[in-house]
Amino acid sequence: MIDEVILIGTGKVAYHFAKEINNNPKLKLIQILGRSKRINSHLNEFSDIYSSDFSYIKKSKFCIIAVSDNSVKSVSTNIKKFEGTVLHTSGSINMSILNTHLKFGVIYPLQTFSFDRNIDFNKIPLLIEASNNETLNELIDFSNKLSKKTVIMNSDKRLICHLSAVFANNFTNHLIYTGEKLLEKFDIDKDLIHPLCEETILKIKSISSYDAQTGPASRNDLETIKNHITFLKKNNLTFNMDMYKSISESIIKTKFDKQ
Amino acid sequence: MIDEVILIGTGKVAYHFAKEINNNPKLKLIQILGRSKRINSHLNEFSDIYSSDFSYIKKSKFCIIAVSDNSVKSVSTNIKKFEGTVLHTSGSINMSILNTHLKFGVIYPLQTFSFDRNIDFNKIPLLIEASNNETLNELIDFSNKLSKKTVIMNSDKRLICHLSAVFANNFTNHLIYTGEKLLEKFDIDKDLIHPLCEETILKIKSISSYDAQTGPASRNDLETIKNHITFLKKNNLTFNMDMYKSISESIIKTKFDKQ
Repeated sequence: MIDEVILIGTGKVAYHFAKEINNNPKLKLIQILGRSKRINSHLNEFSDIYSSDFSYIKKSKFCIIAVSDNSVKSVSTNIKKFEGTVLHTSGSINMSILNTHLKFGVIYPLQTFSFDRNIDFNKIPLLIEASNNETLNELIDFSNKLSKKTVIMNSDKRLICHLSAVFANNFTNHLIYTGEKLLEKFDIDKDLIHPLCEETILKIKSISSYDAQTGPASRNDLETIKNHITFLKKNNLTFNMDMYKSISESIIKTKFDKQ
Repeated sequence: MIDEVILIGTGKVAYHFAKEINNNPKLKLIQILGRSKRINSHLNEFSDIYSSDFSYIKKSKFCIIAVSDNSVKSVSTNIKKFEGTVLHTSGSINMSILNTHLKFGVIYPLQTFSFDRNIDFNKIPLLIEASNNETLNELIDFSNKLSKKTVIMNSDKRLICHLSAVFANNFTNHLIYTGEKLLEKFDIDKDLIHPLCEETILKIKSISSYDAQTGPASRNDLETIKNHITFLKKNNLTFNMDMYKSISESIIKTKFDKQ
């Protein structure tokens, strides 16, 4: 059976859901709703099913709210007389925010999305939760059509996954950015650290991140740490210095206190 | 011409140099020196050329000191009457530490090494520096035999590369560890974040780390940030909280102050 789906939002998450649902023979994307009169240009291919008129929402099995966290509540309130299941896609918002609807739930993709990158949806962990067992079964069925990694998880645990993702993705990305900027600032080719970045990730596929750790903090090499901090201080790289200190302290704690 | 090489040290860096030199038809590893009577078991295949007797150092073109930073000085002092070029492999130690020798220099591999992982040496940036032009030319020739990415760089800039590597590798690895530990602590499968970690690195190959940034801090989503910090505080994850704060502040600064 083909599930019909409505999508609300035109950001990165909405874009990837739209593309995936559109290409999936078991699903049909019948409407995209957004605030702007005209659709975000990244989603141009969907302009024929796009509308900004929230008073006319089509009938469908699922309505996915894929908007920024602080807009979920107001968007949800705008959806009236919808008989299908309303889902949001946020990592940190409790499912109960949707409890004005008959059937509701969450489908949170544990992945980072960009307009310029294709993602194999099949490999994305989809963390799902629903308002009752019947809805959950329908949602499991739906989620399985999108990915091979459906995981049932409540709102409290989902928040932890989101927090973990912030460390593992947002923060690591920022540290790579920081490493690159340091090189650029002193006229050194920033690509020099890319083989290292790649090996960082390849490593944790074969050995644990605990065993993979190298560097001054993991050796408690206080002299090198002092040299680095002095350098950052001398160059007024205060934010870098604060990060350097807090992360080094945590590494030392991990390695030597067996946290 | 085949260059003969002596290696001092039995750690991870020494191990990878030993393997690479041994497999390289243009180079010959003739001796490994270390403190222990018996060689570190990871280097067992080299036991026939291993010695702990520093009073008998063979003649060779290069002697590579690949020991921990705080031992370079004392090891260097132990090398007497050596007529070749003495090199160290450290990112943060000035070349001048070796200036008691006739010819000296640095060959710093900008990579993270483990005993359990094979590394394609050809792709490792080797940052080199030498005490004079003649030695530098010999070192360039040697380095080119090991890698396709030889870069001439002085000690000051090398320190910056090392610092950048600490951010891009040591710290990112620790944040992935932190993300995994968070999941484990609350009985969630830690492998759930691995597709995300992979995409983090794949992304910065096609778009910049600046554009790749997503997440609460990059949106200045203070409510989600507050939720996360409250959660970490409530669970006494103080070190995680300190890292969360310092990195989020730096991301916000980067995104909204155009640092």
